[in-house]
Amino acid sequence: MTALTAQSTTLPAAELPATMRASVLKRQGDMVMETLPLPQLDADQVLVQVAAVGVCGSDVHYYEHGRIGDYVVDHPLILGHELSGRIAAVGSAVDAGRIGQRVAVEPQRPCRTCKQCKAGRYNLCPDIEFYATPPIDGAFAEYVTIQSDFAYDIPDSVSDEAAALIEPLSVGLWACERAEIKPGSRVLIAGAGPIGIIAAQAARAFGASEIYITDIAEDRLAFALEHGATHALNARTDSVEGLDVDAFIDASGAPQAVRSGIKAVGPAGRVILVGLGADDVELPVSFIQNREIWLSGVFRYTNTWPLAIQLIADGKVDLDILVTGKFTLAESEEALKAGKQAGQLKAVVYPGR
Amino acid sequence: MTALTAQSTTLPAAELPATMRASVLKRQGDMVMETLPLPQLDADQVLVQVAAVGVCGSDVHYYEHGRIGDYVVDHPLILGHELSGRIAAVGSAVDAGRIGQRVAVEPQRPCRTCKQCKAGRYNLCPDIEFYATPPIDGAFAEYVTIQSDFAYDIPDSVSDEAAALIEPLSVGLWACERAEIKPGSRVLIAGAGPIGIIAAQAARAFGASEIYITDIAEDRLAFALEHGATHALNARTDSVEGLDVDAFIDASGAPQAVRSGIKAVGPAGRVILVGLGADDVELPVSFIQNREIWLSGVFRYTNTWPLAIQLIADGKVDLDILVTGKFTLAESEEALKAGKQAGQLKAVVYPGR
Amino acid sequence: MTALTAQSTTLPAAELPATMRASVLKRQGDMVMETLPLPQLDADQVLVQVAAVGVCGSDVHYYEHGRIGDYVVDHPLILGHELSGRIAAVGSAVDAGRIGQRVAVEPQRPCRTCKQCKAGRYNLCPDIEFYATPPIDGAFAEYVTIQSDFAYDIPDSVSDEAAALIEPLSVGLWACERAEIKPGSRVLIAGAGPIGIIAAQAARAFGASEIYITDIAEDRLAFALEHGATHALNARTDSVEGLDVDAFIDASGAPQAVRSGIKAVGPAGRVILVGLGADDVELPVSFIQNREIWLSGVFRYTNTWPLAIQLIADGKVDLDILVTGKFTLAESEEALKAGKQAGQLKAVVYPGR
Amino acid sequence: MTALTAQSTTLPAAELPATMRASVLKRQGDMVMETLPLPQLDADQVLVQVAAVGVCGSDVHYYEHGRIGDYVVDHPLILGHELSGRIAAVGSAVDAGRIGQRVAVEPQRPCRTCKQCKAGRYNLCPDIEFYATPPIDGAFAEYVTIQSDFAYDIPDSVSDEAAALIEPLSVGLWACERAEIKPGSRVLIAGAGPIGIIAAQAARAFGASEIYITDIAEDRLAFALEHGATHALNARTDSVEGLDVDAFIDASGAPQAVRSGIKAVGPAGRVILVGLGADDVELPVSFIQNREIWLSGVFRYTNTWPLAIQLIADGKVDLDILVTGKFTLAESEEALKAGKQAGQLKAVVYPGR
Repeated sequence: MTALTAQSTTLPAAELPATMRASVLKRQGDMVMETLPLPQLDADQVLVQVAAVGVCGSDVHYYEHGRIGDYVVDHPLILGHELSGRIAAVGSAVDAGRIGQRVAVEPQRPCRTCKQCKAGRYNLCPDIEFYATPPIDGAFAEYVTIQSDFAYDIPDSVSDEAAALIEPLSVGLWACERAEIKPGSRVLIAGAGPIGIIAAQAARAFGASEIYITDIAEDRLAFALEHGATHALNARTDSVEGLDVDAFIDASGAPQAVRSGIKAVGPAGRVILVGLGADDVELPVSFIQNREIWLSGVFRYTNTWPLAIQLIADGKVDLDILVTGKFTLAESEEALKAGKQAGQLKAVVYPGR
Repeated sequence: MTALTAQSTTLPAAELPATMRASVLKRQGDMVMETLPLPQLDADQVLVQVAAVGVCGSDVHYYEHGRIGDYVVDHPLILGHELSGRIAAVGSAVDAGRIGQRVAVEPQRPCRTCKQCKAGRYNLCPDIEFYATPPIDGAFAEYVTIQSDFAYDIPDSVSDEAAALIEPLSVGLWACERAEIKPGSRVLIAGAGPIGIIAAQAARAFGASEIYITDIAEDRLAFALEHGATHALNARTDSVEGLDVDAFIDASGAPQAVRSGIKAVGPAGRVILVGLGADDVELPVSFIQNREIWLSGVFRYTNTWPLAIQLIADGKVDLDILVTGKFTLAESEEALKAGKQAGQLKAVVYPGR
Repeated sequence: MTALTAQSTTLPAAELPATMRASVLKRQGDMVMETLPLPQLDADQVLVQVAAVGVCGSDVHYYEHGRIGDYVVDHPLILGHELSGRIAAVGSAVDAGRIGQRVAVEPQRPCRTCKQCKAGRYNLCPDIEFYATPPIDGAFAEYVTIQSDFAYDIPDSVSDEAAALIEPLSVGLWACERAEIKPGSRVLIAGAGPIGIIAAQAARAFGASEIYITDIAEDRLAFALEHGATHALNARTDSVEGLDVDAFIDASGAPQAVRSGIKAVGPAGRVILVGLGADDVELPVSFIQNREIWLSGVFRYTNTWPLAIQLIADGKVDLDILVTGKFTLAESEEALKAGKQAGQLKAVVYPGR
Repeated sequence: MTALTAQSTTLPAAELPATMRASVLKRQGDMVMETLPLPQLDADQVLVQVAAVGVCGSDVHYYEHGRIGDYVVDHPLILGHELSGRIAAVGSAVDAGRIGQRVAVEPQRPCRTCKQCKAGRYNLCPDIEFYATPPIDGAFAEYVTIQSDFAYDIPDSVSDEAAALIEPLSVGLWACERAEIKPGSRVLIAGAGPIGIIAAQAARAFGASEIYITDIAEDRLAFALEHGATHALNARTDSVEGLDVDAFIDASGAPQAVRSGIKAVGPAGRVILVGLGADDVELPVSFIQNREIWLSGVFRYTNTWPLAIQLIADGKVDLDILVTGKFTLAESEEALKAGKQAGQLKAVVYPGR
C-alpha cells in the first residue's frame, strides 16, 4: 500500500478519528481487517467517508489470482473502486463548504499534464492512478481520498448504492458513447451480467430502439428483458448473424461471443469490446474490412459522472435493481465470493456498518 | 459476362466501330483475345475508349485461382479495374460536350437509393457493381461504359498511366482519411508494394511528419524511402513495438505484420487494414482495449477521385514511378504474370496498342 | 406547373382514374379547385393517393405573398409538402408489391450524382426539386408522384396525420442532430409554435435533460410544457442569459430571440437557426468567438424519415396533438388561413374528402 | 501586477539574479522600464529567461486604449505573450534536466479541473490565466514563469523569433483545424496581415490546394502570394462571391469582409472568424441557413505547439519572414508603435538585449 496510508496532519476537521478500519488483501486469497491511519489529504483533495462499495469482477480476480495481467498484488492492497460516501474533510485548496456533501467518487487520478489528458482523454493517461489497482489502494475502508473534482455531488433521490454503481454505469455509458448509440440505433449486447444489463439500460437512455442481449443463462436473460433489453437471445440456440445491428457491445469477454457478435454488425457499424477475456482473440478480419466496421474497446471512461447522475435522478437508469447482496466491511471477503452464486448480480459492502 | 455486352443501338457517334477487342478470362488460367460487340450505353453513362489499365493483385488472383472468396469466375469475365481513357460517346442524358474528354474512371456503380448510398457511403452499397468482379466486366477491352459522374476529367499534365492508377491511389487516400492522418501525424505502413508506397505518398500528402514503412525486401524499402516514406524498417530484423504511432496502415495482409503493427500504435490511435489475407486473424484484443485503439478496414473508397486528380496535378503524389511494365492488350496474360517478378511494381496494359 | 401534369400513359393499374382534383394557387391570394390529368410516373417512382397534408408556414407565405425570396409563383402551383398516403401505382422499376402500402412521403428529389448528394448531404443538392416550391407542384391534390425510396412504409399505429407531419418532425430531428443533442444535454428553444414544440419533443427523444422553451404567448408555453419542454420562459419578462445551455435552437425567426438565445449558450455550444426571418441579422460575433460556439442552420433534412417513423411508433414523439384543424381539399384556402387564429397549431387537409 | 512579482525563495539555481528588468505598462499610453523581483516559481513551473517576444495587436491595443472589452489595465501590467527563451530554473516537481533547454512558451494557465479542461478544451476554461491580459503579466521582461508542460522544447533549427511566433501560428493552425482544412480544400482568407499570412501558410500545411487571400494593400497581397497564398484578390475591386470555397477564415475583423467572405462559402462549408472587430456584426443569416454553413471563431488555441514546432522544423511554415523590426527591451514602446507603419508585419523585442 502506498501513498494513502501516511498519518495525516493536515485534516481540518477536529472530530475526525486518527485511524480507520479497512479490509486489506494481504496476498492472493487472504483478506484481513486492519486498523490503519487515515489517508493523507493533498491540497486539492477531499476525504470521503465511504458509504457503499460495489464489488467488481476485477476485485474478485485480484482476490482469487493475486494479479491481473501485469498488475501484481505484491504488497498489501485495499480493493474496491465502485463507491459513494460523504465528504468528511477537504484539502487546503478546496471549498470547505463541500464538507458534508454526499458524493459519488470517480476512482481515478490522471496526471492532467500529458498529451492524453490535455486532449480530453484522461482515461488513457499513461501515469494515471486507479483505485484498487496495485499499488493504489481502493475503498474497502472507512475513508478514502480523491481530488475534489472527481467527487461529484449527488441529490437525495440517488441512493448510496446507486451512487456507488455509477462506476460500472460509466463503463456502459462510455461504451455507448464510443459505439455512437443514438435515437433509433439497433444494438446487440453479449452477456447479461451486471455490465451487460447496465449497457442495455445505457443504450436505452441513448435512444436505441432495439436492444438485443445474449447470454446462456435464461434467468439473466429474463432479468435483462425487464431492465433495458428489448429482445433476449440464448447464445446456445439462437444465432445473431444477419441482425445487421448498428452496434455490438461485448460484455461477455467470450471469444466466440465476440466473433459471432461482430458478424451481426451491419455496414459502417461499430464494435465495442468491454468484456475482458484472452489477450489475443481470432477475429473475422475480412468481415470487418468488407463492411468497414469500426472496432475498439473501452478503458474505463472519461467525464461520465455528470451524465450518470442525471440519468439516475431522471429515472432513465435504475441501478438499485442490480444489488443482490449486502455486506458489512468485516464481511468483505464473503462479498467477494457472493458473485459466484447463481442469481447474484452485484454485492455491496457498507464500510460504515 | 453480363449486362455490358449486348449490341448497342443508342450510340450517338456514327463513326464508332460495331465491335471491339477484349482480353477475356474464359476460366481459371485461361485468357483469350475475343471480338465482342460494343457495350450498351445507358442514358446516364458514357462510353470510354480505354487508354491504360493497371494490373491489380485481385486481377492476378482471379486469373490464378478463378475466384476471390464468394466471387467465382463461372462465366467468361473481362478483368481490369484501374483505368483511364477518352470519352467516345455519351448516353442520352449526358452533355454531348463531354465527348473527347480524357477521363479517369471510378469503376463502381452504386444503386444510389439505399441507406448506405444516401448516407454518403456508397462504397458499402449492398447492390454495388464493381468492374472485374463477377459477373461485371472490367477494362481489358477497347471500350467500357460508366455513369457519367464516375468518369472524371483529367488535365493534360496527368498521364494516362497516372490517371489509371488513381484507382489504387484512392485506396491509399481512403485509408489515410479513415486513419485520420493529419499534419504532424506519425504513421506506420506495413508492406512496401504498390499499395504501401501509394499509402506512404498519400500519408505525406495528408501532412504526416513521420512515415515508417516495413517490408522484408530491401529494394522495396529503398524505393519507398525515395517515394514517400521517411523511415524504412526491415520486418525480419527491426521491431516496431513502442513506436506509438498515431496510425498504422497495413498494406501487407500478413497476419504477423498486422499483429506487430497494432502493437506499434499509441493511445487512441487508429489501425486501418488494407491488405487482404486470411478471413480470420488473431489480434491483440486487450492491447486494443487498453489503448482504446480504433481498428477498421477499407472497402474500396468513396469520393476520392477529385482529390486524387488534384494531388497528382499539384505534384504531391507521383504515380508514374510505379509503372514497371507496359503491355499491349494481346499481352494481357503476360501483364498478369509480370507482377510476380522481382523488382516489378505495376504492370500497365494499353488496349489501344 | 411543370413536369407533374402531363397525361400519364404508363400507369400499370387499370382502375386508376384519368384525372384528379387539385387545389391550385393560380397567383398570389387566388386558389381554385381544378381537375387535372394524373401526374406522369417515372420508372423509379410511385404514385401516391394522398391521405393527409399538413399546412406549413411556407404554404401560407406563398399564398399571401406569391413568393419566398427568389422563388416566385409566376405559374399556377399546387401547394403542400407535408403528406402521407397510399401507393396507388408504381413505375416500371419498382416492386409492384408496394401497391397498397401506406406511406409517409419525403417531398424532395435530389439529383443523386452531384458532390453534395454523393457525400450524403442530398438536402444541399443544388439541383434538388422540392414539393410546393416553384415550379414543382405539391400535395393539395388527390395524387402525387415521388421516387420509391422517398415513400416510406408506415405501420398501422401511425395515423395519416402523424405520417404527414413527419415532414416538420424531420426539421426538428435534423436540428437536434446538427445541434448534437445527446443524453444530458441542456437545450434552449425559441418559439413555441409547431416547429418549436416538435423540436422540444425531438430534443427529448435525443435524451436532453433540460429543455427550455421561450415564447410570448402563455397558452403556447403551457402547451409546450405538456408536450416536450421541461421549462417555459416568457420572452417578454424572463431572461435566458447565463443559462449556459449546450444548444440553442431558434424556431422563432425573430432577430431579438436569436441574439438573446446565442447569449444563453455555453462554451463550445451550438446554435441552430431553424426559423426564417430577415436575410441579414445582427449577431453577437465576439460572444460567438470567445466561446467558440458553432452556429448554423437547417435546410430541410437528410435521411430522417426512418428515425421519425420509429420515434412515433415507439410513442417517443406525439404529432397528433398538434392537429388543431381539419379540412377537405375544397377547403384548402380556409386551411391556409386557419393558422393565423389564436390557439391554432396545425391545419390538415384531407384530399380524399 | 499580481501573482508573478513576489520575491521567489524557491529557485534552485544559485546563480540567478534577485531582480530583473521589465517594461511595464503603468497605464494607457505610459510604458516605463522597471527593476522587479524575479517571479515566484510554483512546484510545477519553470522559470524562462526570455529570448524573443513578438508584438501582437492586442498588446498595441492595451497600450493605446488601456483596455480590451471587459479587461481593463487598472494596475501596472507587463505586456507580451508571444515568446521563446531558455529554462533558467525549475520548480520542485519538475525534472532539473530541463534547465538550459530552449523553449517556446504557450502563454496560458488553465485550471485543469473544470468541465472544459477535462473535455480537452482548455482554451475555454473560464478560470484560465493568460499572459498580458489583466491582471496577468506577460513577457516584456527578462524572466517569466510557466507550467513546465506549457514550455515546449525546440530544436536548434528553430530560431528564437520563430519560436516566439508559434503563438500567432497557433491561432492559424487552430483556425485551420476548426475550419477542417484538409488535402484539396479551397480556402478564402480575408486580411493579409501577420495572421492572414500565417493562416495561409497553415492552410497550405493542412493540404489546401487553393488559398485565396484578400486585402486592400497590394504590397501585403504580393507578400502573401510569396508566402502561402495561391491567389490574391484586392478587396476594393475583386469580388469573392461565387468562389464556393470549403472554408473562409477571416483575419481582418472588418464587417464587410466577413459578410462577403461568408457569401463565398459553398454548401456545408465552414467560416472561422479570427479577426476581432465590433462585438455585433450583421451577418447573412439566410445564406448560412440555406447552405448549412458552420460559423464559429477561435479563442486562442489548444494543443497546437507540438504541431507548430514540427511544421517549422520541417520547413512547411516559415515564420522568420514575418519579422520586420527588432527592438531591445528598453525599446518596447517603440516596438508597439512599429506595427502602424507601412510595410511592417511583426516587431520582435529581445529582453536580453
